[in-house]
Amino acid sequence: MNIADLDTPAVIIDLDVMERNLARAAAYCQQHQLRLRPHTKTHKIPAIAQQQLAHGASGITVAKLGEAEVMRAAGITDMLIAYPIVGESKLRRLAALVPQAHITVALDSEEAARGISKAAQESGGTISVLVEVDTGLGRCGLAIGPAVSDLCHQVQDLPGLCLAGIMTYQGHIMGDAHAREKLTGEENSRLAILLALLDKAHLSCQIISGGSTPNFFLSHQILGINEIRPGTYVFNDLNTVMAQAAQREDCAMSVLATVVSTAVPKQMVVDAGSKSLSTDRLATGQSGFGQVQGAPELVVTGLSEEHGQIDVSRSQRKFSVGDRVRIIPNHVCTAMNLHDEAYGVRGDTVECLWPIAGRGKVR
Amino acid sequence: MNIADLDTPAVIIDLDVMERNLARAAAYCQQHQLRLRPHTKTHKIPAIAQQQLAHGASGITVAKLGEAEVMRAAGITDMLIAYPIVGESKLRRLAALVPQAHITVALDSEEAARGISKAAQESGGTISVLVEVDTGLGRCGLAIGPAVSDLCHQVQDLPGLCLAGIMTYQGHIMGDAHAREKLTGEENSRLAILLALLDKAHLSCQIISGGSTPNFFLSHQILGINEIRPGTYVFNDLNTVMAQAAQREDCAMSVLATVVSTAVPKQMVVDAGSKSLSTDRLATGQSGFGQVQGAPELVVTGLSEEHGQIDVSRSQRKFSVGDRVRIIPNHVCTAMNLHDEAYGVRGDTVECLWPIAGRGKVR
Repeated sequence: MNIADLDTPAVIIDLDVMERNLARAAAYCQQHQLRLRPHTKTHKIPAIAQQQLAHGASGITVAKLGEAEVMRAAGITDMLIAYPIVGESKLRRLAALVPQAHITVALDSEEAARGISKAAQESGGTISVLVEVDTGLGRCGLAIGPAVSDLCHQVQDLPGLCLAGIMTYQGHIMGDAHAREKLTGEENSRLAILLALLDKAHLSCQIISGGSTPNFFLSHQILGINEIRPGTYVFNDLNTVMAQAAQREDCAMSVLATVVSTAVPKQMVVDAGSKSLSTDRLATGQSGFGQVQGAPELVVTGLSEEHGQIDVSRSQRKFSVGDRVRIIPNHVCTAMNLHDEAYGVRGDTVECLWPIAGRGKVR
Repeated sequence: MNIADLDTPAVIIDLDVMERNLARAAAYCQQHQLRLRPHTKTHKIPAIAQQQLAHGASGITVAKLGEAEVMRAAGITDMLIAYPIVGESKLRRLAALVPQAHITVALDSEEAARGISKAAQESGGTISVLVEVDTGLGRCGLAIGPAVSDLCHQVQDLPGLCLAGIMTYQGHIMGDAHAREKLTGEENSRLAILLALLDKAHLSCQIISGGSTPNFFLSHQILGINEIRPGTYVFNDLNTVMAQAAQREDCAMSVLATVVSTAVPKQMVVDAGSKSLSTDRLATGQSGFGQVQGAPELVVTGLSEEHGQIDVSRSQRKFSVGDRVRIIPNHVCTAMNLHDEAYGVRGDTVECLWPIAGRGKVR
């Protein structure tokens, strides 16, 4: 089957580009002796998770229990659920999962730890725990201080739990090369305090988890980190390109779309709107909701649910109703979550069709 | 079953509020002799579409062929596909649908009209057509001028097509009461030119379609419009509230969420992120991605895929991990599209579970 035979909008994965991204990441992690535990929320496709493991990943990361269940059903047996699991219904599902896989969970509260301890006891197994520490993003995680070592000790004392280490996330290290160097220096000062605090509390942490895709290839410069959880690197997206962490040619995922209207001057409308690309803005604050592959002057300037409005005033090409383009999204993870399936292609040949099995697993 | 028994995040529909919204809309349309053809993209649930028909709707509107197929499978037989249908695969599906339902399609190009004419001939039936005219939004639709009457005549001449009228959309009439009055005046001047142009070209249009939820109850003041296609009015959302077109108490849909972290001061994190609420901004440009129901001071200030960050600094209430809140989204249509099912409730009692059958029908 050829790309021309696909109906639109459709998620296209360029397999050559994806495989190059996976190989580059594996080589980097091997060189710097970093364990790679890729976040599969980006693709949500078990077959791609298995390719990541084949490239040397030490296990996978998921955001939600529902994603863990999908990945376990596909035969994957080592996963970090990088999210506090709270509530009876989820704890029952966690207990059911424990005998089938090595499960690590992140948390930042005694309430969450107590629930997960009960689930572990119910399962008859052990759940590994990473205590989440906020090193600057301000989302989840305890501030660096005695609360961290207190919660680590509580985890050690709770039945069924095994303290595996600490989870951080470097999502706040952004900007240009100079800004990042400065932010990495500040991050390392904070991490030095954290590591000293853990040492003083006699907490030996096997895992210090961190990383993010924009800073993937700077991970070895971040103090103490021995495991990283990037997600987006498998496909990359405009955010990765804008962060100068990848080239446009490294973007493996695009949304194939058809021009459905050219009635309004200087504009064409494609059939990929916010239901196909998501309304996520660029992390840099720049405007636009996507760019046509191979034509960065063609920016999606407006989005409604089913309409993508593309400014054609700077393009040499003349577009007609029925023409097709491939659009690289701002944020590939949220775009993937909007679709039920993805087509893997080499050149113009469609090689495979993958259900996006982890789509919509909000619970 | 009680709301307390539901796992989170979960879409909750307050049935009393929804039924009040439906009854109010029906009474208004009856009073002003406007045909109501609700856009079902908001809820994507056939059972709710059937309630709209029971409240006197003259048919339904859908955005995509996939939504039309879902609604037809549920027994609905009169629908407007308010979107240009382009491409062979879709035209084949359209042809298959024609013998089963009265289908009207909107379009703004001869290319689209020719394809749809072929589909009509293939089906052995007739497809009604609304020619889309841009009255100010600048998305799809021909500018008011000879191109409109030309396309209408082409539609009249193409086999299998029946020119039913004109489609407009008043999405650009926004702002406060004063701004809207001014914009409605300008809109009516444009519509007067359009109607004169149609009259001069001897085009008798049975349907002049228009409307939008924020301007729902102003529809009778918009010149010539005899059919309206609001979607959001069934549930309302923060955009409708900010447009002063509904009260917070008129918002029927909320996302039930659990507090999963309170580790960062002045903030709580809930398990409803952009994968549950969408990153759609408010049309007014105000910040925030949702508000806690009954507590408008609790705004979702930050969103990542699975994390909703809520500023609690102005709240009297003290929140703990495990507490639950209901969040009204900025834009209910895109939020609904992220979920597989919705719970209908009365008070705290769960009365029904609806699959969101039209979710993800991007094609």
